[in-house]
Parts: sequence; structure tokens; C-alpha cells
Amino acid sequence: MDFNFLMPVKVISGEGCVLKSAKLLRSLGRRCLIMTSRSAAKTSGALDDLISTLEEAKINYTIFSEISPNPLLSQCQAAAYAAQLCRSQFIIGVGGGSVMDAAKAAAWLANNNCSAGEKLMKGELRHGPLPLVLIGTTAGTGSEVTPAAVLTMDKTGQKRSITHHNCFADIAFADPRYTYTVNRDHTVSAALDAFSHAVEGWFAPACGDLPTAFGEKALPLILEGLEWMSENDGLPEKEMRDKLYYGSLWAGMVLNATGTAFPHPLGYILTEEYSVPHGMACAVFLPALLERAEKYCKDRAERLYSLCGGRDRVFAILGRLVSHNVRMGSEQIESYKPRWEGVKNFERTPGGFTAEDAAGVFRSLFLD
Amino acid sequence: MDFNFLMPVKVISGEGCVLKSAKLLRSLGRRCLIMTSRSAAKTSGALDDLISTLEEAKINYTIFSEISPNPLLSQCQAAAYAAQLCRSQFIIGVGGGSVMDAAKAAAWLANNNCSAGEKLMKGELRHGPLPLVLIGTTAGTGSEVTPAAVLTMDKTGQKRSITHHNCFADIAFADPRYTYTVNRDHTVSAALDAFSHAVEGWFAPACGDLPTAFGEKALPLILEGLEWMSENDGLPEKEMRDKLYYGSLWAGMVLNATGTAFPHPLGYILTEEYSVPHGMACAVFLPALLERAEKYCKDRAERLYSLCGGRDRVFAILGRLVSHNVRMGSEQIESYKPRWEGVKNFERTPGGFTAEDAAGVFRSLFLD
Repeated sequence: MDFNFLMPVKVISGEGCVLKSAKLLRSLGRRCLIMTSRSAAKTSGALDDLISTLEEAKINYTIFSEISPNPLLSQCQAAAYAAQLCRSQFIIGVGGGSVMDAAKAAAWLANNNCSAGEKLMKGELRHGPLPLVLIGTTAGTGSEVTPAAVLTMDKTGQKRSITHHNCFADIAFADPRYTYTVNRDHTVSAALDAFSHAVEGWFAPACGDLPTAFGEKALPLILEGLEWMSENDGLPEKEMRDKLYYGSLWAGMVLNATGTAFPHPLGYILTEEYSVPHGMACAVFLPALLERAEKYCKDRAERLYSLCGGRDRVFAILGRLVSHNVRMGSEQIESYKPRWEGVKNFERTPGGFTAEDAAGVFRSLFLD
Repeated sequence: MDFNFLMPVKVISGEGCVLKSAKLLRSLGRRCLIMTSRSAAKTSGALDDLISTLEEAKINYTIFSEISPNPLLSQCQAAAYAAQLCRSQFIIGVGGGSVMDAAKAAAWLANNNCSAGEKLMKGELRHGPLPLVLIGTTAGTGSEVTPAAVLTMDKTGQKRSITHHNCFADIAFADPRYTYTVNRDHTVSAALDAFSHAVEGWFAPACGDLPTAFGEKALPLILEGLEWMSENDGLPEKEMRDKLYYGSLWAGMVLNATGTAFPHPLGYILTEEYSVPHGMACAVFLPALLERAEKYCKDRAERLYSLCGGRDRVFAILGRLVSHNVRMGSEQIESYKPRWEGVKNFERTPGGFTAEDAAGVFRSLFLD
């Protein structure tokens, strides 16, 4: 038994939670920078709610809406610079994982030298971050409750993640209504991302009593929505989307405590080079992870299947939802091996995992 | 569904966790004040572990060992003054709920005017607290993971509680070995306290999805130990005591989110005037709470009983363990009524609860 824990974010959930929080936001300062992507913050209704609240609270705001999916480090640096120019006292990220992760980076850079991107990625910035508020709009990332941020490096085009306690938000608003306008493809991929967090974390060495309890909540909630989408076109009813959103937060609580296993770093390559959306890219590798877990972590695997209504159900749902057109030659697969040396996520994989193991998984899935 | 949450304490658990944390403690400063009671910190082994670690980390320390059970506000003020005199950069409380609660108060006072006790109790001190580390030695209070502190007022002898985010520790060490030296009576009372937290919180309006999940963990763990003690003399084996300790932390996570219902404030009177230990004093009122919950919160009551192995089991265990010799006349009972006006805990009671309801419970239990 154990009781290790750290998740310092104040999470405020429920319909209209942003609109009720003028006073709380005012306690963070009088000027803020809002970071969003081009459209999701607007179409979800989150930005309108936020602006009403900021106006009620007499907080001046500037909107930086240039954050793209798989955000570049340079976008975060630009946002941090904008925050400095506007003398923003705090930053609010409104969007999915890309925006929230970028906001984490920008909030930390904005209180330091904005161009110190490499120091940021190493967690070596001198000063702490500006206060950070997150408003999630997708049921996937769980970034609201984790200290992780995944950014794309401008020079290499590769995704890199940073996990640091300075990347926790101060406040996260969780209003599931903001996820209702997400389209089907994004909803599926986001739900697969959340499911990957819960499954990968479940088998990590750090998955003690608390993350296990969180996983027990996350898995059935997310799988119910995934099953519906695997059997129907379109999108599920609101109640099921609420479950997907709250399930993604429970999964984020797992992720926060455990980190991810090999599907996440392997998935980055599919996203970078084949434009497979992040959640889908991770889920491609879940069957391989589960088969490995059955071998090296039998009890935990059985417990997971029992929470998920059985092994067959899990594999059937993944089989219907997960697809890709990735094909590659053996030389290309070999070329990834140096990148896979010393990846921390591999250590969190049942039975351990090497660059050669990763190449083997790639060959079995993608070899021409 | 919901996902409201705030529990910012970094909890580090397991055998020897203090001994491994020299670097972490050093990050808080070079000088600290240790607060303890007369003996528990020493006999539990916690103080020895802490001192070894502080010496390894080259942190200077002063020990203030004057904290009594049901600590007086003046003791906290004296400790805060000692911290100021020693220029302590942080405070470490080593003990049960009394010491941890006193350390919360002292850490906040030490960064303000030490004599401002009334402002402390109102949460109106100007500056935030010194960093605070807690090392628990009893399986009951859960104070490690809550922002609550209960202190006894010097003038009136009455217990008052403060709940404020500035009363969260920064770090809590949870090593169940420190609970092994607690004697049987204290172990029973502490476990009853933890059980009260889980039960009272379970029926509170704020018991949303997260505290419910915590309660689902807490209740069976604590009840197993209580059942053993209700059927045997002496103390259970280490494994069961570990469960009691971790169960008390899960219950603390419930309490943190929900607050307590009427048993806690009613219990204060039994402690103040009849020297009934705190946990026992709360548990005296649990049957009345449960009966009320069956009436006003039927579904939740049934779910609780199902987690606890049935209603009969709960009432049988409480029946065997809970005892008191409190008798009083009806005038005395009437005299408490003014104190029971506007008590927040009453609002958290299923069906609501008034001063007259409280008097009724007192009459049914204690009338000569």
C-alpha cells in the first residue's frame, strides 16, 4: 500500500463554472493573456464565457490565437513575449491539449527570458512561472491536471515533452459543455488519447493506490464512449460526452502520477511524419502494450480487463476505431533507433522495452 | 458528475520516506522549527528519522515540544514566536492531529504578528504561512491532507476549527511505521475519528465524484481494523495498522473536500467537558447520523452500507467499541443551544440539523 500524491491544481467543474469565477480570476491580477487556437475556443463557447467573466472582473486581456495543433516551441516563445509586452500578470489557455501545453510553456517563459526555449525543455529556467489558468475544450489530454507539456521543436520537427511541477496550472475550469462542438474524428482521437493515458499509466511502476483508484474511475467512463463511437456514426449524447470529459480528467490524474509507456513516444513519430492525430497515433500501439502486459503484468492486466468488461470488448472496440495507412521500409524503421535510446517511457513499460523492441513493434505493424 | 478538486499537498509515503528526503527538505531552507508533543514523536521513531535527515541536509533545527492534546491557541502562538526568534524558514510538525493542527497555526502566525490569534481563526492574517512539513504519527486525523486545524481557545476552553487553504501543508510524510507505537485506546479513538471523517463526509452536499471515490477506499480499510479491535484485545498486526493509516489519509481526502457533519461539533463538547478522546467523542454520534442519513439520503446510506459489509456490521462494530459515561441534566443540554446556532457542520447533515435537533440527540444519549 502507499499514498504518494501531488496534484496541486484547483479544479472547478460543472456547467457555467467559468461564469461564476470573476472574483477568483481577479485575485490573480488585473491583466492577462488569453491563449487559444484559431477556432475551438470560440466555437465551443468557452472564449465568450471567459470574456464575459473577465469583463465582469474588470480584468484587461489580450488574445493570442496563433497556437496550432502540435504547437511549436517558437509559438510559446511568441506568446510569452506578448505576455511580457502586455505586462500580463497571468495567462489563460483555452483549448485542447495543444493550447494548454503551449500555455504552460508560455507562462513559464513569460517570467523568464522568453527566448530560453532549451532551458525551458530542460526545466532549468531561473524563475517560476506566471500564474496559469486552463480551460479545457477536449475530452482527451487531461492536461488540466498534469505537469506535462508536449511541444514540437522548430528545428527538428520532433515532439518533445517536459514534465515539471512548474507546469501545473493554478486553476483549471472543467465545463464539459465546451467539448460538445468537437467533431467526430477529433472526439474519437481525443478519447483514444485519454484511454491511452489510463492504460499506459495503469501498468507503470508508479501506479500505486491513488492512481489505481483514478484508473478504476477513468477506464469504464472512457470505454463506454469509445464503444458507442465504435458502433455508431456521429457523436454520443451529452451525458456520454460528459462522461468522456470527466473520464479524461480521471485519466489525467493517472498520467500525472505515472507518466506514459511506449505508445506515446512511438505515436509521436506517426503524428510528426504521417499526420496521424495524437490520440489515434498512441492507440495504434495499445494492443501491443496490452499483449506485453498480459505477459509481464498478468494480475494488473486481468484487473484492467475486468474493469473494462473483458479483454474481448477492449480489443473489439480498438479494432473498430483504430486505423492508419502507415507503411514504411525496414531501413526507415532502423533509422528511428537512435531516437529510442534512453527514452524514459520505455522504462515504464511492463517487462521493460528497448529500441530493438520498438523497432520490432514498428515492423509488425508498418513494414511494407 | 463533477470533478471539483483541491489538495495541493505533496504526500510522500512508505517506510523510510523521511530518511530519503534530505534534499527535498533542504530546498525549504536552512533553519526550521520542529513542533512535537511530549513523547509521541520520540517513541514513534519519527523524530530520530527526522533529525538524521536534517543533519544530513545540514539544516539547523530547534525543537518545540510543548504541544498538548487539544492544543491551546496560546501554544501555537508561543511556537510561532519561537520560530521567529530562531529565524526558522519553515516548520515541521511531527505527531498526531493535535501537533499537526498546531503546526498549521504556528506556520501561519510565524509569518505574521504571532499574537494575532483571533485574526488567525478568522483567516484574516495579512501574509501567507511559512512552508510547512507534516509527519503524521496516528491513523486518524488525516490532517496531513486537509486545510483544517482545530484549536482550543484559552479563554473559553472551547474547541474551534479553522479551514483555510493557507492551512495546507507543503509536504506531508506518511510512514505507517510511526503509528505502530500508539497504544490501544488511542488507536481505537483515532480509527473512529478517521471513520467519522469518511462517514460524515460521505453524506455532505460537497461529496462529489472524487470524494466519493476516496470514501470508497477509506471505509473498508478503516472498518477492517475497527472490526478487529472490536473483537480482540490488543492491537492488530502491522499490515492492518498500515491499512488503518492509509485509510485515515483516504478519509482525510474526503474530509478535505466535504467538511464534517454534526458529530464533530457535538463531539467537541464531550472532549472539552468530559475528556472523551476526540475520535470516540465523534463516534458516539455516528449511529444518530446514520439513522438520519437512512431517512434523508437513502441511496447514499445504502451505498455506504454496501461498502462496509452491511448495516448490521457497522452498528455491531460501533456498538462494541464506542462507550462513554456522559450523563447530564436537561438544563445543561439547553445551555449548549446558543453555541449550536449557525454551526456550518449542521448544514452538511442529511436533512439539515438545528440546535433543537442537537439537543434532542443529547437528550436521547445523555439525559440523567
